[in-house]
Amino acid sequence: METPLKQLAEIVGGEVDGDGSVIITGVAGIKEAQPGDITFLADPRYEKYLKTTRASAIIVSKRIPDAGRPLVLSGNPYVAFIRAVRHFVPERNGRPVGVDPTAVVAPSAVLGADASVGANAVVEEDVTVGDGSVIHAGAYVGKRTRIGAGCVIYPNVSIREDTVIGDNVIIHCGAVIGSDGFGYALDGDAYVKIPQVGNVVLEDDVEVGANTTIDRATTGSTVVGRGTKIDNLAMIAHNVRIGENSIVVAQVGIGGSTEIGKGVNLAGQAGVAGHIKIGDGAVVAAQAGVTKSVGPGKCVSGYPAREHSLAKKVYAALQRLPELIKKVADLSERVRRLEEKSDG
Amino acid sequence: METPLKQLAEIVGGEVDGDGSVIITGVAGIKEAQPGDITFLADPRYEKYLKTTRASAIIVSKRIPDAGRPLVLSGNPYVAFIRAVRHFVPERNGRPVGVDPTAVVAPSAVLGADASVGANAVVEEDVTVGDGSVIHAGAYVGKRTRIGAGCVIYPNVSIREDTVIGDNVIIHCGAVIGSDGFGYALDGDAYVKIPQVGNVVLEDDVEVGANTTIDRATTGSTVVGRGTKIDNLAMIAHNVRIGENSIVVAQVGIGGSTEIGKGVNLAGQAGVAGHIKIGDGAVVAAQAGVTKSVGPGKCVSGYPAREHSLAKKVYAALQRLPELIKKVADLSERVRRLEEKSDG
Amino acid sequence: METPLKQLAEIVGGEVDGDGSVIITGVAGIKEAQPGDITFLADPRYEKYLKTTRASAIIVSKRIPDAGRPLVLSGNPYVAFIRAVRHFVPERNGRPVGVDPTAVVAPSAVLGADASVGANAVVEEDVTVGDGSVIHAGAYVGKRTRIGAGCVIYPNVSIREDTVIGDNVIIHCGAVIGSDGFGYALDGDAYVKIPQVGNVVLEDDVEVGANTTIDRATTGSTVVGRGTKIDNLAMIAHNVRIGENSIVVAQVGIGGSTEIGKGVNLAGQAGVAGHIKIGDGAVVAAQAGVTKSVGPGKCVSGYPAREHSLAKKVYAALQRLPELIKKVADLSERVRRLEEKSDG
Repeated sequence: METPLKQLAEIVGGEVDGDGSVIITGVAGIKEAQPGDITFLADPRYEKYLKTTRASAIIVSKRIPDAGRPLVLSGNPYVAFIRAVRHFVPERNGRPVGVDPTAVVAPSAVLGADASVGANAVVEEDVTVGDGSVIHAGAYVGKRTRIGAGCVIYPNVSIREDTVIGDNVIIHCGAVIGSDGFGYALDGDAYVKIPQVGNVVLEDDVEVGANTTIDRATTGSTVVGRGTKIDNLAMIAHNVRIGENSIVVAQVGIGGSTEIGKGVNLAGQAGVAGHIKIGDGAVVAAQAGVTKSVGPGKCVSGYPAREHSLAKKVYAALQRLPELIKKVADLSERVRRLEEKSDG
Repeated sequence: METPLKQLAEIVGGEVDGDGSVIITGVAGIKEAQPGDITFLADPRYEKYLKTTRASAIIVSKRIPDAGRPLVLSGNPYVAFIRAVRHFVPERNGRPVGVDPTAVVAPSAVLGADASVGANAVVEEDVTVGDGSVIHAGAYVGKRTRIGAGCVIYPNVSIREDTVIGDNVIIHCGAVIGSDGFGYALDGDAYVKIPQVGNVVLEDDVEVGANTTIDRATTGSTVVGRGTKIDNLAMIAHNVRIGENSIVVAQVGIGGSTEIGKGVNLAGQAGVAGHIKIGDGAVVAAQAGVTKSVGPGKCVSGYPAREHSLAKKVYAALQRLPELIKKVADLSERVRRLEEKSDG
Repeated sequence: METPLKQLAEIVGGEVDGDGSVIITGVAGIKEAQPGDITFLADPRYEKYLKTTRASAIIVSKRIPDAGRPLVLSGNPYVAFIRAVRHFVPERNGRPVGVDPTAVVAPSAVLGADASVGANAVVEEDVTVGDGSVIHAGAYVGKRTRIGAGCVIYPNVSIREDTVIGDNVIIHCGAVIGSDGFGYALDGDAYVKIPQVGNVVLEDDVEVGANTTIDRATTGSTVVGRGTKIDNLAMIAHNVRIGENSIVVAQVGIGGSTEIGKGVNLAGQAGVAGHIKIGDGAVVAAQAGVTKSVGPGKCVSGYPAREHSLAKKVYAALQRLPELIKKVADLSERVRRLEEKSDG
């Protein structure tokens, strides 16, 4: 699809700086772009590619004098680029149309207008699926689960009974929603299973990554707030509550009954203990081990996790520890000699 | 279901302390409970909710003078609460009845009395399934696998060939049992796959969490002992042996051929190297990195994991390290001055 | 299958040292072996079992004077043992024959000679599957995906649209290939999804473990190089590129756009940040947290990861830290006394 840059700038909501007649034919990252592509610059770490990229145009947030090619100025280059992607790359995956004859949909399930169910998917009794939602091939939806409008449930997802899912929720392949929480009572040496009779609630605009697991509550609900995005292979334990617009990166684990605020960012492989609180806007660094509650807006890292500014000093100091031990041994010897002299 | 507290106390095996005529209509956690609910107190961290809970009655282990509502005294409040849950909350998920017409069950497979197979599940040749066991929708059971009585295999579980599963085993959605162990021999630069021709044995009363993976042995068996409970997204490598009544929390990884004793507790995200032993009753703290064998009853934490009492001191000391470096620099200067004086 | 040791030595490409007439009937690990079995010794940690193993013969790399039984000498005992396993243990799992009647294969999909598709598997439009490849039960293959010859796709695997898979690739149960990369642009408080319109390329001889996830690129391709082996529950983010013959052990996470070289070894639970490079032949220790690029051939460990030789010293020194703090306090007191004397 050949699009003059001037026209594309209007589509993405930006302003051309340079030759608007350049023909753009596609989109790509700054490193992969070829002539004809438009790319973007949002992350300063990529500025070094400005000169060497083969892209025919770049979406940027401010004028760059010697960019050597036309630019599109935008208040948010990322969002503008997303619009360019949508312009050039139509929905490629498509979606099943209607209910595939091999899908097993209980007679009591209610599907909204234009909802579809893929091959060999299973939708149990009393499920409701909102308008335009797609249940892809091989996915499982348990009894009484309610799925809102505009949702995408990818292949081989498992959603257990009584889950409540809002509108425009995306659940990636292999994710498991509503598995039993991990709860036992010791009876002598043996563990007795505590029935997990709560459910999971995913509010509007939540996205759940591939093979992530979100356990149902013991009683009550495990809740993921509106707009929160969860990456792959994360573990959300029973009775966890996550606020709105938070980010949970891949392989993060959150222990039972912990409360995560709004706008929180949990980086990859971080672990958060059960029964604590992470305040609104807090940031937990990658691989951090959080054992105590974290206040709003705080940034913590390391194990056990501490205020990041302190943890950074501690880990820098740590590298000097072998040298410090030598220095103390040396000091000790010098003091011994001074003591001898002083006594002598 | 309205149940007078006195009658409920009998059902759960406890003793009323207070007004036994109060009507109980449901169960809930201490924070979520509403009037009509019974709740319980087992974890001291929840004592602070004793005064503010809206529950109509509380199961506790000992008299509480000013609880402000009737109590049920029980030697094990958790177990008593489980009984209350079972009284009020009937099995909600239900189960497939018989063999769903869309299930693919090999003619040579043998299903016990009252066993059932859900929609689009696949049961291969020469599989045996015990009385009352349930294979849910979309699950896969490979050739010659033997499943005992009273088992629940949740949707989209994959069980490879020759697995041996005892009675009353629960396997949650997306778990993979019997995938190939990760074994290669270097042949020049390239890795040659070592055939993994052993199997996996899950003894009676084992529970395996969602999306957990347990690899088959190279030769022999990977074994999970009776009553051991494994949480979500854990990785049990080939030829691992876990004893009875152990706990493996979410995202734990256990390296190949490692032996875990009885009554061991591996906390979340802990990693245990291959070819070592963790003794009976040992505890490995969350995120610990265990590189050497751990004796029976020991508790280890940190990276690399050490005796917990030492590790705690080390991590506390670590926070004082930047200050220590300053102190040593200061001492060094003071000693230099003393040396000057002493020499001068 | 009874095989005289002399004949077996020829099959595995080794040389008998001892009685070649001994009859071998099976294979097993050195600890599990029974009379009649042949085993092997490659890992020095297993030398202690040389005397106590019940095996009738052992494949070794060099003569052992007092082994007490015949040996097979081989330049690579592992590879020789693999050949012995293949001799004694025929392919046990078997494979679906042809296309199962319950599989859903789009009319536009093209299956190679002798390719097969298992029960309830789904193969979408315009997919191509090479000669002899097997799509097992319940697996999903999205539109336009190309699978080479000799591949094994295990049950309940999900492969999204436009994935490109070479020859002899093995993908274990529950793995997800081509799920959306985790990319959002902040628009005020809310995250706007960045369309992920790239794909995943798995080159020849790649193996992907159970429940591992490999995300599709934002634009361009996420690439796993020829011969690279990935264990279970690993996370390969969007736009990652891994070179040839590398090893990614279980539960490793690799951040977006990171480049991993050839012959790299990432040990279990290691985390590698996004947008960095790991050079050819580098080794990252288990649980390491890699935040900066690592040069070719380097070995790093710890958090944040450092050159392993330094990190080892640091972690050893760490254990002495509480004692060091006491020593410094003591020194400080001794210096104070000297200062008093000196001033007095």
